[in-house]
Amino acid sequence: MKQRLAQYLPILDWGRTYNRQSLSSDLLAAVIVTIMLIPQSLAYALLAGLPAQVGLYASMLPLVAYGMFGSSRTLSVGPVAVVSLMTAAAVGQIAQTGSVDYLQAAMLLALMSGGFLLLMGVLRMGFLANFLSHPVIAGFITASGILIAFSQLKHILGIDAHGENLPVLLSSLISNMTEYNPATLAIGLPVIIFLFWVRSGLSRVLQAIGLSPYVANLVSKTGPVVGVLLSSFVAYRFQLDGQGVALVGQVPVGLPALSFPEISHPAWRQLLVSAIFISIIGFVESVSVGHTLAAKRRQRISPDQELIGLGAANIASSFSGGYPVTGGFARSVVNFDAGAQTPAAGMMTAVGIALAAMYLTPLLAWLPNATLAATIIVAVLSLIDLTILKRTWVYAKSDFVAVATTILVTLSLGVETGVACGVLASLALHLFKTSKPHIAVVGEVPGTEHYRNVNRHNVITHPSILSVRIDESLYFANATYIEDHIYELLEKKPTVKHVILMCTAVNEIDLSALEVLESINQRLLDSGIQLHLSEVKGPVMDVLQRTHFIADLGGEVWLSQHQAEQHIINETSA
Amino acid sequence: MKQRLAQYLPILDWGRTYNRQSLSSDLLAAVIVTIMLIPQSLAYALLAGLPAQVGLYASMLPLVAYGMFGSSRTLSVGPVAVVSLMTAAAVGQIAQTGSVDYLQAAMLLALMSGGFLLLMGVLRMGFLANFLSHPVIAGFITASGILIAFSQLKHILGIDAHGENLPVLLSSLISNMTEYNPATLAIGLPVIIFLFWVRSGLSRVLQAIGLSPYVANLVSKTGPVVGVLLSSFVAYRFQLDGQGVALVGQVPVGLPALSFPEISHPAWRQLLVSAIFISIIGFVESVSVGHTLAAKRRQRISPDQELIGLGAANIASSFSGGYPVTGGFARSVVNFDAGAQTPAAGMMTAVGIALAAMYLTPLLAWLPNATLAATIIVAVLSLIDLTILKRTWVYAKSDFVAVATTILVTLSLGVETGVACGVLASLALHLFKTSKPHIAVVGEVPGTEHYRNVNRHNVITHPSILSVRIDESLYFANATYIEDHIYELLEKKPTVKHVILMCTAVNEIDLSALEVLESINQRLLDSGIQLHLSEVKGPVMDVLQRTHFIADLGGEVWLSQHQAEQHIINETSA
Repeated sequence: MKQRLAQYLPILDWGRTYNRQSLSSDLLAAVIVTIMLIPQSLAYALLAGLPAQVGLYASMLPLVAYGMFGSSRTLSVGPVAVVSLMTAAAVGQIAQTGSVDYLQAAMLLALMSGGFLLLMGVLRMGFLANFLSHPVIAGFITASGILIAFSQLKHILGIDAHGENLPVLLSSLISNMTEYNPATLAIGLPVIIFLFWVRSGLSRVLQAIGLSPYVANLVSKTGPVVGVLLSSFVAYRFQLDGQGVALVGQVPVGLPALSFPEISHPAWRQLLVSAIFISIIGFVESVSVGHTLAAKRRQRISPDQELIGLGAANIASSFSGGYPVTGGFARSVVNFDAGAQTPAAGMMTAVGIALAAMYLTPLLAWLPNATLAATIIVAVLSLIDLTILKRTWVYAKSDFVAVATTILVTLSLGVETGVACGVLASLALHLFKTSKPHIAVVGEVPGTEHYRNVNRHNVITHPSILSVRIDESLYFANATYIEDHIYELLEKKPTVKHVILMCTAVNEIDLSALEVLESINQRLLDSGIQLHLSEVKGPVMDVLQRTHFIADLGGEVWLSQHQAEQHIINETSA
Repeated sequence: MKQRLAQYLPILDWGRTYNRQSLSSDLLAAVIVTIMLIPQSLAYALLAGLPAQVGLYASMLPLVAYGMFGSSRTLSVGPVAVVSLMTAAAVGQIAQTGSVDYLQAAMLLALMSGGFLLLMGVLRMGFLANFLSHPVIAGFITASGILIAFSQLKHILGIDAHGENLPVLLSSLISNMTEYNPATLAIGLPVIIFLFWVRSGLSRVLQAIGLSPYVANLVSKTGPVVGVLLSSFVAYRFQLDGQGVALVGQVPVGLPALSFPEISHPAWRQLLVSAIFISIIGFVESVSVGHTLAAKRRQRISPDQELIGLGAANIASSFSGGYPVTGGFARSVVNFDAGAQTPAAGMMTAVGIALAAMYLTPLLAWLPNATLAATIIVAVLSLIDLTILKRTWVYAKSDFVAVATTILVTLSLGVETGVACGVLASLALHLFKTSKPHIAVVGEVPGTEHYRNVNRHNVITHPSILSVRIDESLYFANATYIEDHIYELLEKKPTVKHVILMCTAVNEIDLSALEVLESINQRLLDSGIQLHLSEVKGPVMDVLQRTHFIADLGGEVWLSQHQAEQHIINETSA
């Protein structure tokens, strides 16, 4: 009973053994992650089209909720780039950016997403995420990164531009390009360059002046905060708001009021599909981060429990004025590297963010939006990995087609259509491949009991026997193809009196395929040819035995291919 | 060149060897099929919501066009029940039954369907039909038969009733039930009983009075014509139109005018999806009949050429005032049984129908609609086969779910939704099964080189070796499942130093699965365990060799499972 409860409430598990050493590790990690998270949370809220403080709100209670229900020890939950982009795309269709409706819809989206994740978790449906193949995920993340980077250019240039896909966005950017604001660019460009240097060169410089690689690495994560402070100071010093530089401006001080999003909000039907997409993408991203980190410390995460953890986090986000959240890669790695031992680190981070919301928000008045945009651009460039195209091209064309479809459709038609087309393309390609399976004529490897493809190995065949290995389960999509192929093989080898289907790769025979096998058997019988099966697996044989097929079979079912051929040859020569 | 031409124009093939004997066989078949077709064509036009003569029009040129391009020798093309029902459902949504628009839309539907079939044929896409599994087809035909039978009850009762699905249709029938027309029922009910008796008992009676079974069988096919003549006479004799009995009435005498349907008809967008559904269903129905008949005479049909033949037939139907057609089961069997040798029989049937249209249509004035409805009801009852539910239940639950889904959705939501849900359900079930594959731990069958499931056979295993046979290709949908399963097996057997994946059933390893294998390999290496592969198939090995995986592998790749175990055991004991 206690164990069962701990399965659903992992905090009962790690909480029992919590000690002073875990506490000090977690506390250090929390401080570092808090410093890194403040600018990132503000920036992602901007990307989602929401007021900056909403990013902070989404980084408090969700961390506490995940800490209680999540199964990963080190995953850090909060606003992330891709989910923020998807939120902007979903909410942007039904409300005006900056309006109260927009915020209400974002909160509702978090609630629906949380509810859907919880439902999937309770129904143990985590396996559904497996239908998103790695190439589709890689292509989607890359394309989203490109979209996000271009969507932030307007803040760097100080112009207006909109568009949920690359063509619209680009044409919008280009047509407004000439109205760029010099002062904004003068802030944005240096910050981008600074953040790039922080990311690529700072750690080396710090190591050169004697810091340990570990410390140097962690210190370099504070780069965005330095960027925020410096650019805010510059904006204040030169009163850049007078120069047309967009600033975050006055934001409410203090913690968010707990509130319930309006469920009666008429938008919920329109948001439903988006909520499902956001849930699945967020879940897949989060679980892959969680798996990676858990593997490094020989821990396991439970995908179904992750659904519950993320569901709770999103519901908590919704109730505290936030928007959809999930486990982020960058922040989780920092949390892990900083030595976080348990989800308590995340809870302490939540306290850190709360303190920031209470005492630091007045400072945001002078923070330029361009700085936040620069933070986003530098962060998402690490998401963009076009080498996946080359890797899949070399490995398998079907994987390449899945990646290319996902990237092209995401860029040209937007995120939801992109990921849907990617999933459909990868499923269709898989079905297409299994509908035209590899079929090999096999013969005996001399001196062994093994049978191999006559085209690849030097094997012995017998003129009266046609041994065929079908490299696929027999099911409706390939039954007719296999039938045709067998008849074609028979036409080429008219001396055949025995056909042996070697079923090592046949994991299933469905009713459509059974009917085809029955018709093949009948037709061969009419021509005086016996149909045999060999190496039929247990589960397949169980099913066949419920039918008349075995009784009607012209030949026999053999345990091994070797037995079958030996027996037939002996019988023929006798 | 000539052979290539004959491939696309099969008439050049059979036409060359056409002789007097073929002529007399074909002529006899044509006469019998014509007699059978006249009432059937009229009836199916009624089912499609079209004027009765349209059924005759759809039974002339389409037969000639199919005769030239089709690859089946004995298939009989024309109006059929299911396609007529689908036509009514599609056209009924955009035009009023009986209006000129309705007929124009039906002709346009035939044109679009023909164009789509031709396109599929030219692109050699006939294999797409394989994605309709046998259970889905069986379920769909059964449900359609039920819908058709209920849709004709209104003509038997002489009431008004509409509905594209069973609940609407039934409630419409029940609420108008009390307004039934006694005279109509007095025609309809006896005709139904007569036709049932013709179908079930007449042949036996005829044989008892000395006719050969062959002749008795053919004569009993003329039952519907007798029903038509008798009921028309009764309607005329008692002037039943005065009693409220609906009659076919005055129809235009003569052949249809050749005309081009209005392509600019605004409805074409709305009809597009229906045209695709009708094409695919018609094609699948036709090909399965064609296959069955061809197999009986050791002939073959070419699915891609069938697409071209059916495409030509539909375009011909459209140009001659008809509606969508396909190869029908009942008529083709009659054609076959009557001894048709070549598609010339179909062409002669077309001439027969043309003569009927020219000289017999005045007789239709007194034909009661109830008679045609009775013809349809008796014809479609043979389509209804609910035993498929029991057969699939016994055979495999997944096939049962596919049938049940198709039947339920077709009945409750209509034909197009039904077949779409059936296809999606069968594909989803297949993917679901492959996402949780059967995984067996295997051991050596004593004294052989064979390795079998430890749970099913008495086999030898070794404490330091875990040999696992994965009964499925490794791809994105099952990669994580397999990873988890292997780790679970390892937890149960902590003495293991070598894991051998026996790949007899692995027909593909996609990039997602490769990444999982790499992570398994890495994790096992970290624990001092070697990962081996055995019995990797040629095509899979080709792909793996393009990657670093083989080089990074902790263990080795072995040609056979036996080699792998022998080598490891010898090495361990040495």
